[in-house]
Amino acid sequence: MGQRGVTVWFTGLSGAGKTTICQVVEQALRAQGHQLEVLDGDVVRENLTKGLGFSKADRDENIRRIGFVAHLLTRNGVIVLVSAISPYREIREQVRQKIGDFVEIYVSTPLEVCEQRDVKGLYKRARAGQIKQFTGIDDPYEPPDNPEVNCQTQQETVEQSAQNVLNCLKSLGYLDQVPVLQQI
Amino acid sequence: MGQRGVTVWFTGLSGAGKTTICQVVEQALRAQGHQLEVLDGDVVRENLTKGLGFSKADRDENIRRIGFVAHLLTRNGVIVLVSAISPYREIREQVRQKIGDFVEIYVSTPLEVCEQRDVKGLYKRARAGQIKQFTGIDDPYEPPDNPEVNCQTQQETVEQSAQNVLNCLKSLGYLDQVPVLQQI
Repeated sequence: MGQRGVTVWFTGLSGAGKTTICQVVEQALRAQGHQLEVLDGDVVRENLTKGLGFSKADRDENIRRIGFVAHLLTRNGVIVLVSAISPYREIREQVRQKIGDFVEIYVSTPLEVCEQRDVKGLYKRARAGQIKQFTGIDDPYEPPDNPEVNCQTQQETVEQSAQNVLNCLKSLGYLDQVPVLQQI
Repeated sequence: MGQRGVTVWFTGLSGAGKTTICQVVEQALRAQGHQLEVLDGDVVRENLTKGLGFSKADRDENIRRIGFVAHLLTRNGVIVLVSAISPYREIREQVRQKIGDFVEIYVSTPLEVCEQRDVKGLYKRARAGQIKQFTGIDDPYEPPDNPEVNCQTQQETVEQSAQNVLNCLKSLGYLDQVPVLQQI
């Protein structure tokens, strides 16, 4: 294949649409036959970071571990899609520096919109005080300063967001061809 | 490359010689240009399993995590060399089942020999009760029933052990050519 590895890191609030966009990108890349791994928050919590909580130290350790694994895969030519809230700028920067081939996707859906959707009912529980240290409610989210892509999901479809990610990977030399997504 | 991925798992007592043999295998494979990652106990404890102790549950979680990462790499065509005491048979079997392309190397140096060498001084401290739950002293080691290779380090040189590992990888179809090691 001679494929260049890269970590594509989706950051944003809970319910912003990270995983949804990530899945569309995944399908498009799989259809092209790329070597691909998805490190999704839930899979990672189960397999790598069980026992970690939501303090800053634990969140940072969580991101550091995802970064460690993403790095191993990336330097072996794999395209790694990471979907994680990853609220802290500094640790995201550390991971970027370590991996090198790193593309940051900011899914910038505003808090009000995420809270209105509240697909998993988590915001409601956080507002009621049943979940503590919930990002955006009583824990900070630090947006990226210069993400490679900003997915503004309140103004564009999932496919448009995914297309922007794919176009970015092409322009940075990680893809030879860009799949064109059907706009649904 | 079209290289087939495989996890080569070195198990055995502390001081048995796992890492030493592993390093010779690593150098030989790197010289052939293979895609390779080494997951050594220390690196793993720092990056994946910080905070885990030496209870059976924690040891199993340690091995499960190494197995998770080895699996991701292996299915992307990487040769992964794992060096870990991994004293429990059942979790090693679970990892083998999950990964599929798995070759178990039993470094079978007897306890007396490991304790006599005691390179890191750990056995002395364990005998003195300064380290608890030390494998071979007050924690069990369950040898593999059917390892692909048994490295009997008290009867053979490091290079002979490493050569046996390489020959095994060739006979199982993971290598096209076997590097011939210089016998020092």
